[in-house]
Amino acid sequence: MRIMLIGASGTIGNAVGQALSERHEILRVGRSSGDLRADIADPDALRAMFRTAAPYDAVVCAAGLAAFGELHRLTDEEFQLGLSSKLMGQVNLVRLGLSGITDAGSFTLTSGVLSQEPIPGSSAISMVNAGVEAFVRAAALEMPRGVRLNVVSPPWVRETLQAMGWDPSPGLPVAAVAKAYVDSVEGGMTGKVIDARDYA
Amino acid sequence: MRIMLIGASGTIGNAVGQALSERHEILRVGRSSGDLRADIADPDALRAMFRTAAPYDAVVCAAGLAAFGELHRLTDEEFQLGLSSKLMGQVNLVRLGLSGITDAGSFTLTSGVLSQEPIPGSSAISMVNAGVEAFVRAAALEMPRGVRLNVVSPPWVRETLQAMGWDPSPGLPVAAVAKAYVDSVEGGMTGKVIDARDYA
Repeated sequence: MRIMLIGASGTIGNAVGQALSERHEILRVGRSSGDLRADIADPDALRAMFRTAAPYDAVVCAAGLAAFGELHRLTDEEFQLGLSSKLMGQVNLVRLGLSGITDAGSFTLTSGVLSQEPIPGSSAISMVNAGVEAFVRAAALEMPRGVRLNVVSPPWVRETLQAMGWDPSPGLPVAAVAKAYVDSVEGGMTGKVIDARDYA
Repeated sequence: MRIMLIGASGTIGNAVGQALSERHEILRVGRSSGDLRADIADPDALRAMFRTAAPYDAVVCAAGLAAFGELHRLTDEEFQLGLSSKLMGQVNLVRLGLSGITDAGSFTLTSGVLSQEPIPGSSAISMVNAGVEAFVRAAALEMPRGVRLNVVSPPWVRETLQAMGWDPSPGLPVAAVAKAYVDSVEGGMTGKVIDARDYA
């Protein structure tokens, strides 16, 4: 398969790229590095990216920004970041990437367990993650030509906690998280919110 | 209690107003009618509204627009309508209305069962409704002074189906839907997604 991997240089994206590259051709996309450059918050950049890359068999997104912070401190701009990047950025990957995807191809987006398991400070991120998940469940019902659409919901990743100087022990190793993405790309499911903890 | 009812002239808002006015003072708010006028998609209008009305014991929102339509036909503007009105409009009711609400007051927002039970054509609405629900679950964890925050998830309403010339029999009578809002305002729960079908 020829797979577009958006957010390829991130902690999760890098692990997903390693796992998928054993059997597939990977087109790595990042905001500032990669085979192609695009910010998912920029629809024009996405259009250009898909035009250049088509046809492709799968689009995997491990990109998308959203702000964490106490509700009374979150600014309008911080709410908007999550809406423009992690939510509509990923929605637009599906809307704009659909015409260039091969029959029975697949989209795999990213949410996060804060969608269903909030903590203080997660109001904007929980909102965005749940929006992505509900979009996937609904839009999967309308995918043409056997195209599949899923979203992986990762928990805290061990390597991310480590890089932030926190206790890594509650985190899931990124190699396990990557298995969830591989299962979405290579398996047959659609419309699913895939809890990466099931791949521990 | 002194209760602000946003979207008071709609099918649900009207029934909620009738049910609550038996025991409470109701300040009715609409885009083009009511004691106060405001479009929830306009933060400046919300600020002015809350300044005029404060203090209040409860804010109930039965307003918020989002577009229904096939994914390949939904425009950028139709996605944005749901994000600006039903999603961020309701989020901003909480953010901007919090300072004027009395201790142990409450917010009650509106989502809809398409958040969890999508149908073809619901991708934008499902996304928005699920975003509202996740925001409520998360933001309720941070409410100060005993303030509560819930969201009512209505199914199809019998009177709405009737007005649209459809078969009303699968719908829930609006009087039953209104009971869910009354329970959120007068009860003790917080952080809950209240399925209005439980009040049938």
